Amino acid sequence: MRLRHKPWAKDYLEEHAGIVIKEPETKSGKWSAIFGNENPVHVEVGTGKGQFVVGMALANPDINYIGIEHFDSIIVSAVEKVVDSGIPANLRLLRANGKELTDIFEKGEVARVYLNFSDPWPKSRHAKRRLTHGEFLSLYQSVMPEDGEIHFKTDNRGLFEYSLVAMSEYGMRLLDVSLDLHAEMPEDNVMTEYEEKFSAKGQPIYRLEARFMSKA
Amino acid sequence: MRLRHKPWAKDYLEEHAGIVIKEPETKSGKWSAIFGNENPVHVEVGTGKGQFVVGMALANPDINYIGIEHFDSIIVSAVEKVVDSGIPANLRLLRANGKELTDIFEKGEVARVYLNFSDPWPKSRHAKRRLTHGEFLSLYQSVMPEDGEIHFKTDNRGLFEYSLVAMSEYGMRLLDVSLDLHAEMPEDNVMTEYEEKFSAKGQPIYRLEARFMSKA
Ligand SMILES: C[S@@+](CC[C@H](N)C(=O)[O-])C[C@H]1O[C@@H](n2cnc3c(N)ncnc32)[C@H](O)[C@@H]1O
Ligand SMILES: C[S@@+](CC[C@H](N)C(=O)[O-])C[C@H]1O[C@@H](n2cnc3c(N)ncnc32)[C@H](O)[C@@H]1O
Repeated sequence: MRLRHKPWAKDYLEEHAGIVIKEPETKSGKWSAIFGNENPVHVEVGTGKGQFVVGMALANPDINYIGIEHFDSIIVSAVEKVVDSGIPANLRLLRANGKELTDIFEKGEVARVYLNFSDPWPKSRHAKRRLTHGEFLSLYQSVMPEDGEIHFKTDNRGLFEYSLVAMSEYGMRLLDVSLDLHAEMPEDNVMTEYEEKFSAKGQPIYRLEARFMSKA
Repeated sequence: MRLRHKPWAKDYLEEHAGIVIKEPETKSGKWSAIFGNENPVHVEVGTGKGQFVVGMALANPDINYIGIEHFDSIIVSAVEKVVDSGIPANLRLLRANGKELTDIFEKGEVARVYLNFSDPWPKSRHAKRRLTHGEFLSLYQSVMPEDGEIHFKTDNRGLFEYSLVAMSEYGMRLLDVSLDLHAEMPEDNVMTEYEEKFSAKGQPIYRLEARFMSKA
């Protein structure tokens, strides 16, 4: 069933409270208990319709995935994908804003943050809204171990240029950079919805992996 | 006059010893004296036929430029350009290898290093020959002040990806990155020979500015 009438979204999310965890800010420090194991937790901020996080959960059963999306109307599509994929035990979704990360997770609870095709906010007066702005990096760092990693993909050149500089300025180390991911497509690449759309148009997909450095 | 017969190169360079400084390793610590002023010295390693360093010297009379090129047969073309441009007082060339930088300059004597379209050395067993390899970064740092900068342009995606990671790993900060320099061509961009060739083919030109961080 595809939901066309988004007013149903709230009810639909209520019905799937096993997938979309309610009141996530009450779960801080309890994520291992929720998953029932001590596997690392990887979080995608801005999950959209969920294709990436579902694909990753199916491909990597020894990692726990949490997809965070702040719009009801969008996250319902992700819930449908989770249902269609058989509800993998290592996957949860949260209807939340990335800004709330530190309410939702304790220091060290998140091993990796994924950002995929984040909204570019091209105007400089909106730079603070970019998910790779220093203030967001600080939030990610607050929920990760000292050497936590961010893995980021986008088609947006301006956002990628900005992010390289923002992460470097923050003191992060670049571990890997690709300026045309699909030119030598890594075998384990899981495509997002936006990635399919933009790569089909022939646009290069940019990707980086960066690590926080301990503040020694 | 264009030189076609490269056997003349040595004689030609001898004749222009005011432009191509001989025995540069005897000039360490004396570059301000050679230029006759205390202006900052910017060095391009791998100058090729000299279009960039000549253009920069003409555009920025308050900066002293030194172009370093290790092939006689190529540097003669740069000398011709210097002669044709009226022999700017703030420009010298050196027939030398970038590896010899620490013999040629004292710590702090070079304010900035330019690398333009450096040979990509795509095979990983040749990585040490790339001018952005950690061993070269260490040489550049040895002749610059604590906050010395490297400005690097290339059309080569693999080399640029490598260089972003190598500089980050070395502890440098990225100040600016462009993944398509000619899309918003900066007014003060001086094109190199290779830049003209590759941008005419529609290839994106990559550019970065990075700064060494004091080893505090
Ligand atoms: C451009 S879409 C990309 C979706 C998906 N990651 C993809 O690659 O196909 C960005 C998504 O991030 C969500 N988003 C943006 N800012 C967010 C934030 N601060 N917290 C949670 N979600 C956010 C938006 O609602 C949108 O669904
Ligand atoms: C690909 S060409 C680019 C020339 C010019 N920078 C341009 O952008 O048009 C690279 C040049 O760097 C020179 N080169 C390479 N390695 C060098 C080194 N270690 N020291 C000095 N010159 C070097 C080569 O001889 C060649 O002329």
